[in-house]
Amino acid sequence: MTKTSDAPRLELLQGTLDMLVLRTLQWGPRHGHGIGQAIRSQSDDLLKVETGSLYPALHRLVKRGWLKAEWGISEANQRARYYQLTAAGKAQLSVERDRWSQLVDAIGRVMNSASAIKE
Amino acid sequence: MTKTSDAPRLELLQGTLDMLVLRTLQWGPRHGHGIGQAIRSQSDDLLKVETGSLYPALHRLVKRGWLKAEWGISEANQRARYYQLTAAGKAQLSVERDRWSQLVDAIGRVMNSASAIKE
Repeated sequence: MTKTSDAPRLELLQGTLDMLVLRTLQWGPRHGHGIGQAIRSQSDDLLKVETGSLYPALHRLVKRGWLKAEWGISEANQRARYYQLTAAGKAQLSVERDRWSQLVDAIGRVMNSASAIKE
Repeated sequence: MTKTSDAPRLELLQGTLDMLVLRTLQWGPRHGHGIGQAIRSQSDDLLKVETGSLYPALHRLVKRGWLKAEWGISEANQRARYYQLTAAGKAQLSVERDRWSQLVDAIGRVMNSASAIKE
């Protein structure tokens, strides 16, 4: 039983992907590929962010002012866009972190409830 | 600070709504409106399932064989479709419960990680 075959394909909420991207950039600027790699490695390979979801998310986050993008040179000596968290992005990360905790908590109440009717 | 104004609008993953519907029906058959009410009350009003999401979800779950639908008479003396969990639906609930735990765990690893690079 290997980890990879064992791991389910985990779908992400759009809001969840945004939160993970913002979180990843708390550790410093990264290019898109590096962000995807960080999410994958930090989640021990459970979360695989598709390029087709990641780049639209980055575009959206820049548009909302939560990220700043700049051209730079990657470790492979290629021109790449580097993304950096803005002050507004830091505040948004905190909002999304709270919202995620509340969602997990609310779903947990339904999943772990002992009876059908709440007193 | 009242509960209602304080509560964020929580978005649900499609897969999460399916899981919550299956879970709600573990307590016995219900009509669509009753399922929505149960999710809302069990989550202490945090989760509000829109009719526009609930009915397509019920349709999808019946189509997949996870729910069985039957006409019945509601407490308001109206004809209503009652939904009931099938054996396949019970098995699916267990699959979705595991997947949800794994997603929460994986996201938690990224959100709570102490450093950018995993050793």
